Amino acid sequence: MESALGPRLVRDPDLIAPYARDTSRAVDEGTPLAVVLAESTADVSAALAWADRFGVQVSVRGAGTGLAGGAMAYSGGLVVSVDRMTAILDIDVANRLATVQPGVITADLDAAARRHGLFFPPDPASARMSTVGGNIATNAGGLRCVAHGVTSDAVSALEVVLADGRVMRTGARTRKNVVGYDLTRLFVGSEGTLGVITEATVRLKPVPPGSPRTFRASFPELEDAGRAVTAIVNSAVRPEVLELMDSLSVEIIESFHPSGLTAPAGAMLVGQTVGWDAQVQAETITALCRELGSDDTEISETDALLEARRLSNPALNARGLKISCDVGVPVAALAEVFRGIAQISAQHGKRVSTVAHAGDGNLHSTVESPDTPEGIREADAVIDDITRLALLLGGTISGEHGIGSVKRHELAWQLDPVALDVQRAIKDALDPNGILTPDRAI
Amino acid sequence: MESALGPRLVRDPDLIAPYARDTSRAVDEGTPLAVVLAESTADVSAALAWADRFGVQVSVRGAGTGLAGGAMAYSGGLVVSVDRMTAILDIDVANRLATVQPGVITADLDAAARRHGLFFPPDPASARMSTVGGNIATNAGGLRCVAHGVTSDAVSALEVVLADGRVMRTGARTRKNVVGYDLTRLFVGSEGTLGVITEATVRLKPVPPGSPRTFRASFPELEDAGRAVTAIVNSAVRPEVLELMDSLSVEIIESFHPSGLTAPAGAMLVGQTVGWDAQVQAETITALCRELGSDDTEISETDALLEARRLSNPALNARGLKISCDVGVPVAALAEVFRGIAQISAQHGKRVSTVAHAGDGNLHSTVESPDTPEGIREADAVIDDITRLALLLGGTISGEHGIGSVKRHELAWQLDPVALDVQRAIKDALDPNGILTPDRAI
Repeated sequence: MESALGPRLVRDPDLIAPYARDTSRAVDEGTPLAVVLAESTADVSAALAWADRFGVQVSVRGAGTGLAGGAMAYSGGLVVSVDRMTAILDIDVANRLATVQPGVITADLDAAARRHGLFFPPDPASARMSTVGGNIATNAGGLRCVAHGVTSDAVSALEVVLADGRVMRTGARTRKNVVGYDLTRLFVGSEGTLGVITEATVRLKPVPPGSPRTFRASFPELEDAGRAVTAIVNSAVRPEVLELMDSLSVEIIESFHPSGLTAPAGAMLVGQTVGWDAQVQAETITALCRELGSDDTEISETDALLEARRLSNPALNARGLKISCDVGVPVAALAEVFRGIAQISAQHGKRVSTVAHAGDGNLHSTVESPDTPEGIREADAVIDDITRLALLLGGTISGEHGIGSVKRHELAWQLDPVALDVQRAIKDALDPNGILTPDRAI
Repeated sequence: MESALGPRLVRDPDLIAPYARDTSRAVDEGTPLAVVLAESTADVSAALAWADRFGVQVSVRGAGTGLAGGAMAYSGGLVVSVDRMTAILDIDVANRLATVQPGVITADLDAAARRHGLFFPPDPASARMSTVGGNIATNAGGLRCVAHGVTSDAVSALEVVLADGRVMRTGARTRKNVVGYDLTRLFVGSEGTLGVITEATVRLKPVPPGSPRTFRASFPELEDAGRAVTAIVNSAVRPEVLELMDSLSVEIIESFHPSGLTAPAGAMLVGQTVGWDAQVQAETITALCRELGSDDTEISETDALLEARRLSNPALNARGLKISCDVGVPVAALAEVFRGIAQISAQHGKRVSTVAHAGDGNLHSTVESPDTPEGIREADAVIDDITRLALLLGGTISGEHGIGSVKRHELAWQLDPVALDVQRAIKDALDPNGILTPDRAI
């Protein structure tokens, strides 16, 4: 392998260290043998073929912004990093497609598309740091999902290196394609367990006309805010962003970076409308919110409100708060899940802050608890209860962060034994030696 | 098996015959052993467990409207029909989800949703005859794909019976869900080769406000119509339907069922706009068409124009024309593919009629040729050339009909050997005895 990779095979511990973990709470598994700083599909292929031959465990890494432990290095394993594969290979304006290498920063792809009047719909909060390849490998969500769907909805075709180093193409450049199994979708969200994405053709959309509006509606009662979200989503307006911050979240964000937001007694909805009728849509939404219990609304031409929402993760990190969830519920269950979270919080005697991609029912609740083994155990118990509540309401254990190593114990809460078997059978069929991100995601 | 199924196991040859084939040109493979008229998941499970134990080949059948031979019975095989599983189990208005058995007629689901102000977006031309289960198994397309995507975009969760009779659930009721591999998408479009869909939870959308408009734009030059489609798709308007009929298609449809349409020298675009601004959108589209070469446009409040388009298949069938393709191209390549089809037609000395779901680049070209072995061979050669042209332009061999048995020889034209291997590995992992729709689709 060394002869194939030359200086792109890195074994200096100081240089390896930054590639050994992601942004999750996962515990380090040990020092990897080496990092491959891949610059081409051939590099990735050489690395995997070598690892497969010697049974070396491989972790795959974009920017390492994952929150589920999926990119943590294995002790004695190989890290395959694609963060140097940063070429935007093609922007096909007439067909609204872009072809990129996996290490392109998501916001850079978006910016490149915007120079042609197009944009890249997926918009994870990490878009300025995370890579397109990582977004695809985890099927990342984000703020615009309520309008545009998740990352998988934007992926048209992939080039993938399989565990044994073979290179495969999936998908097509057409909108419709029913040729064999949908391997594109199988690899999107597979969290590095089936192959390494080395190229992606993604769908762009035209930038909406007019100028966007942001809106805010503060609610004395959290449950009313939940009800308002259900009503908005079921109305004729189509917000591009529809987020919720509960009272404690706003406090935490304001104390991290004051922007003049007043924490409501219950919760605050913030969002964005686009198109020629952005103002009318925002007015319709805020009027609906006032009908449903909001006592304070605002419409703005700046996006300061959304910037505040985007500070949620840094603000939580600054407080050392890291025990959180990523559950999803059907959007009509939002009021009920908020009521339940308040009960769980009271039962455990722990404060819980929640931000939500409310328009699609995806919640991130974080538990205030000391960073001690006891405190972490207590916080985990709260998250477990919230997760079971979400499942009870027809929800999911992960809306957008994925399973990685952190949520693996929850898999059997959601998937039946046959589905777990089928996942395993697919994994074994595509990676018979079990080298690719073993013991994670499935 | 007989004890489990009782009278739902049918062996009378006269009763079996209607279940032995689909609507494709595929040649009968012989008489099946029996048909299971399943009324429940348990029936399907019992049938597959039996077939798996004895190595009996199974074909799966909804309404038998497939055009690729996927549901053809096997000689001595078992037909599992789900056409009696017709219950609409739930319409969850607040979450815009419907849960149905697989034998529900697609138009019936749509009608049920409309009673709640919602609709089911997938709209294959066969919607009044085909089943939701069959649409999912083939990832059916249709007229509204340009606005709403394909069937897979509307599927949220499935219940599936595997080859060995085990029952599994996939997916979730939430908009976002990243828990393990996307088994839902793996089964959508798998054409009965991985399991039998016994229940589906699908996404509904709100009926747009206002009343729709249909529009027509006739073009003296076919290539100009192709260019107009590219321009419309890349403009700010969002037609819900955007179809193309070439001159010969209009002639064939008019002679089958006269509705006063004048065949243009080149081609006719017909489509539909919806929403409060349907009229303005239709005017924008027809104005764009006139700029790009249309000499005759029309806007209407009735959908007679679309009805004419929907008669294309019956009209072709009435002439005995059945050698056709289902290729897709990136939408910017439409003008070029039309130019190429004209060349191929001239080279072979065969008249070719083309209708297209133009907005998503999906073409159905049909060859006029005698229904003799020689005539069929000649027509197949024309279709092969059109298919290769589509691939050359970055397209696909099948946009919506699937591979079945009819297009299997074309698979290797599109998929690389590694992708073919991976498809086979997945099939072998999930159906080790190879009983489910063997030797088709992949």
